[in-house]
Amino acid sequence: MIHPSSRILVIGGGGFIGRHVVDTLRADGHGVTVLDIVNPPPGDAGGGWITGPISDLTLVAAAAEGCGGVVFLANASLPGSSQADLAREVEGHVAATLEVAETCEAAGVGRFVFASSGGTVYGRDPPEGGLSEDAPCLPLSGYGVSKLAIEHYLRVLGRRGAMRTLSLRLANPYGEGQRALRAQGVVAAAMQHAVEGTVMPIWGDGGVERDFVHIRDVARAFAAALAYEGGESVVNIGSGRAASVNEVVAAVRRHTGRPLKVEYRAHRSVDVRRSLLRIDRARRELGWTPRLDLEAGLERTAAWWRTGAGAAPGRAGQGGR
Amino acid sequence: MIHPSSRILVIGGGGFIGRHVVDTLRADGHGVTVLDIVNPPPGDAGGGWITGPISDLTLVAAAAEGCGGVVFLANASLPGSSQADLAREVEGHVAATLEVAETCEAAGVGRFVFASSGGTVYGRDPPEGGLSEDAPCLPLSGYGVSKLAIEHYLRVLGRRGAMRTLSLRLANPYGEGQRALRAQGVVAAAMQHAVEGTVMPIWGDGGVERDFVHIRDVARAFAAALAYEGGESVVNIGSGRAASVNEVVAAVRRHTGRPLKVEYRAHRSVDVRRSLLRIDRARRELGWTPRLDLEAGLERTAAWWRTGAGAAPGRAGQGGR
Repeated sequence: MIHPSSRILVIGGGGFIGRHVVDTLRADGHGVTVLDIVNPPPGDAGGGWITGPISDLTLVAAAAEGCGGVVFLANASLPGSSQADLAREVEGHVAATLEVAETCEAAGVGRFVFASSGGTVYGRDPPEGGLSEDAPCLPLSGYGVSKLAIEHYLRVLGRRGAMRTLSLRLANPYGEGQRALRAQGVVAAAMQHAVEGTVMPIWGDGGVERDFVHIRDVARAFAAALAYEGGESVVNIGSGRAASVNEVVAAVRRHTGRPLKVEYRAHRSVDVRRSLLRIDRARRELGWTPRLDLEAGLERTAAWWRTGAGAAPGRAGQGGR
Repeated sequence: MIHPSSRILVIGGGGFIGRHVVDTLRADGHGVTVLDIVNPPPGDAGGGWITGPISDLTLVAAAAEGCGGVVFLANASLPGSSQADLAREVEGHVAATLEVAETCEAAGVGRFVFASSGGTVYGRDPPEGGLSEDAPCLPLSGYGVSKLAIEHYLRVLGRRGAMRTLSLRLANPYGEGQRALRAQGVVAAAMQHAVEGTVMPIWGDGGVERDFVHIRDVARAFAAALAYEGGESVVNIGSGRAASVNEVVAAVRRHTGRPLKVEYRAHRSVDVRRSLLRIDRARRELGWTPRLDLEAGLERTAAWWRTGAGAAPGRAGQGGR
């Protein structure tokens, strides 16, 4: 059992997910060290922020020293960017992550929680009730293969006995702090276009369905994963429900009161039509369940955008993923 | 359809499997280029042998130039050696293989056949009839994870459309030309100990079962894979039957007429108890079926050892894997 006051290292703690994980862990009483490629936001008063690349293993070792657990959220690539050069994807993503994990193991860290991708590792449309962790994985992209490969290597690493490992297959996190700066995040994109009055491009007909899970629920899942004592190596984290992009757009219009315009564009071939994760294992193994449904989550998110926070750089949600 | 007279590049063509693949392809009328870290054996008259490491991508590109297909048999690691440093395993095995594959794709190669490992990718004991390709994979070793990861990346690479890819999940190849120089090859070890009158160490109680497939059948499978036009990305290649190490020992005694002595040692934890592959897909998709059962295969193998060929360096079976 990880001690409730153990220090936790959050690698990639400056990103959208990371900021919420850090807040949740601090609220739970943990000391937190962040390692991220970006500098801390001006308001950060928690201390323990280390700025540098994860390829600097001396830095990683120093950051991990004395930590009971590590949450790994750094991403060397993005879902759409890893099709052209698979060998580089392997080196920059899989090998880089394993180097960090083995450095943490050597530093005496007791557990390592990895953010995997529920939307890409399966590579298939889900059955009615969603994909369970035991479903065969056939990722359609190099990014998905890398996430799956890391999960497997971490499982093998965990079998050595020194550092427990767990991979959380995240559905589509959204919420306060998520910016629309990159090619990820349908909700953030819709919010930003609504707020700025610009036209939102939609890849496909908007019927693509995703499993949107609120970031606060995701952050609680990482906290639960750090305390996990069981034998599973992968656990799905989702909302339990699929919603279409068009549903999100309609809800964003409702919650922002803005006439969000959209433009439908050609479908990207690496996307699956629908993603939905079964979350029975998370409930059973982690004692975790999502608390905010899409309406409640979008209401909070819209409130955050209405304050102008979403448009102001330097606030939560900045940072390299 | 690959042209029957297309030139084929066999990477790792100097090893046990490679020599037989080369012989089979030449017998089928293909021109063959070998790329291997070792020099050609003195008797090799086929021409087109290139000596060098696969990390030399300029060399790989030159070797692949004008070839219709590539068979990839080079191994950067061995099943037992990849537990300690997973990050290095990723770089030296997965990234190195992908670099070669992408170099071949860029050189205009039409198809790429990869030797995967049916004994390690599944990581589980088989059901009664053997493991089918759709069984979930949970490799127990870094080596097995690497093979599985390469399969997945190659499938994604194949989806680009330029170079078809296929992975053959090999059971346990054995036969003429296999030497007992490394930690692989129960049959070769038994033959060598029988011939030399030394004691054979056995890891476990000898009840461990493996799916021993004769090397000539394996070589025919690679030839069939080069001609494959279908949509599968992985195909099992096995004998259709599991035999225990003790069975092999008894059969080797019978075929060599020697009193082979054995010594049982502690079980290695990365070994599964039994491996057996279903080969329905190979029959259906490749039109391939094994022709030599264990008795017939061991008879040929024993004959090869009796001639003294097994003990003489410089003959078939030498070379880097």
